[in-house]
Amino acid sequence: DVEYAELLADKFDIETLKVNMKEINEPLENRLKNIDIEETERSHWPQTKIPTPNPAEQNIQTRLRMMTLYYIAEKKNYVVMGTSNKSEILTGYYTLYGDGATDMRPIGDLNKTQVWELAEVLGVPEKIINRPPTGGCRGDESDRDEKEFGISYEDFDQIYESINNNDDLSKFEEGDVKRVKELIDAARDKSDIPTFKIAE
Amino acid sequence: DVEYAELLADKFDIETLKVNMKEINEPLENRLKNIDIEETERSHWPQTKIPTPNPAEQNIQTRLRMMTLYYIAEKKNYVVMGTSNKSEILTGYYTLYGDGATDMRPIGDLNKTQVWELAEVLGVPEKIINRPPTGGCRGDESDRDEKEFGISYEDFDQIYESINNNDDLSKFEEGDVKRVKELIDAARDKSDIPTFKIAE
Repeated sequence: DVEYAELLADKFDIETLKVNMKEINEPLENRLKNIDIEETERSHWPQTKIPTPNPAEQNIQTRLRMMTLYYIAEKKNYVVMGTSNKSEILTGYYTLYGDGATDMRPIGDLNKTQVWELAEVLGVPEKIINRPPTGGCRGDESDRDEKEFGISYEDFDQIYESINNNDDLSKFEEGDVKRVKELIDAARDKSDIPTFKIAE
Repeated sequence: DVEYAELLADKFDIETLKVNMKEINEPLENRLKNIDIEETERSHWPQTKIPTPNPAEQNIQTRLRMMTLYYIAEKKNYVVMGTSNKSEILTGYYTLYGDGATDMRPIGDLNKTQVWELAEVLGVPEKIINRPPTGGCRGDESDRDEKEFGISYEDFDQIYESINNNDDLSKFEEGDVKRVKELIDAARDKSDIPTFKIAE
C-alpha cells in the first residue's frame, strides 16, 4: 500500500508524512486479545450482511489509523478527508469509527464506477486503477470487496442506480438485484446512533 | 473513576470487566508525540467554542477506550451503549470518534438536570450524584465541564429548554443566553460528515 501511495504522491506532487504504527499495533492487539472474554460466533459483520470472519482484529488497525490521523489533524488544525465512495458507504464497507470516521467525504457521492472513471481523467497511474479493491487488512487477497459482496462493483453500481431511478430491472440477474437490496438494507442504519426519546 | 464505577456496579448488581490499558496508552502517546510535525496553535476545540488546551493528547485516551469497548463488543456480539446526555451532545462535550462513538444513547434525550433527577429516583449513590462533572482526562479538576463552558449545567439546561419552547428569556442574564447560543451553534455540525454532492 505504501508503494502505491508514494506512486500517487509523486505523480501529483503531494507532500507526504509516513508514520509506522506497527510497533504499537502489535502490543495493542496482544493486550486486547488477552482480555478474558469468551467469543460469540457470528457469520457476518455487525450492521451489514457481508460474510466475514470476526472483524474485531482488523478493526484495531483501521481505528489505530484513525487515531493517528486525528492526532496529526488536531495538532496541525487540519481536516481529515475520508476516502469512502458512495458504493462503500451504501454497502457499509468501512469500519465504524475506523476508516469511516472522518471530517469530510470528497468522493462520497461518486460510486466506484465513477471513481474509476474520474481516476482515468485525472491520470492516476494505471497500476493503481487496475488493482483489485481490497480491505487491505489481512495482508492477502482474502478481503477483496467484491468477493465479500458476492457481486462486482460494476453490477452493484448499475443495479443501485437503476433502483434509485425507478428503471426497469428486468435486464439484470434476479439474484444480483436481490443481493444489492440485501446489502443496502443491511447497512442502512450503520452510522446512525439511535437516541432514546422522551415521549411527548 | 474505577472506585465510582465499582460503587455503582455493586449497588445495582451489574457484572463488570476491568481492562487496564495504561501499558498501551503510554507507548501509544509517546509514538504519536514523536511524529515529526509542527503544532499549530489554537484557542478552542475543533468544532466547538469550548476554550481548552489542544485536546490531541486527551483524545488518545478516549479513542483507545472506544477501541477497547468495540473490540469486546465485536467479540461478544454486544452493543456499545453511550453515556452522552442531551446537554453534552448539544455542547459537543465529547470526543469525536472517542466517547461520542457508540451504538446507542439511552440517556441522549435527557439533559444533565434530568439525569441528576433520574439518578435520585433510581437511588444512585449520593457520592456519585454530587461529584462535579469532569472530562476526567487530565487527572485533576482542570477539565470540569462547567468551567470550560463558562456556565453551569443548571443554567444551560433552563436556558436551552426556554429557547427551544420559545419562552420569555428576559428572566435570564443576557450574557448567559448569549453563551448558550454560542455553545450550541459551535457544536451543531460536530458529528456530521459533509459529503460533496454531484450537482443535479
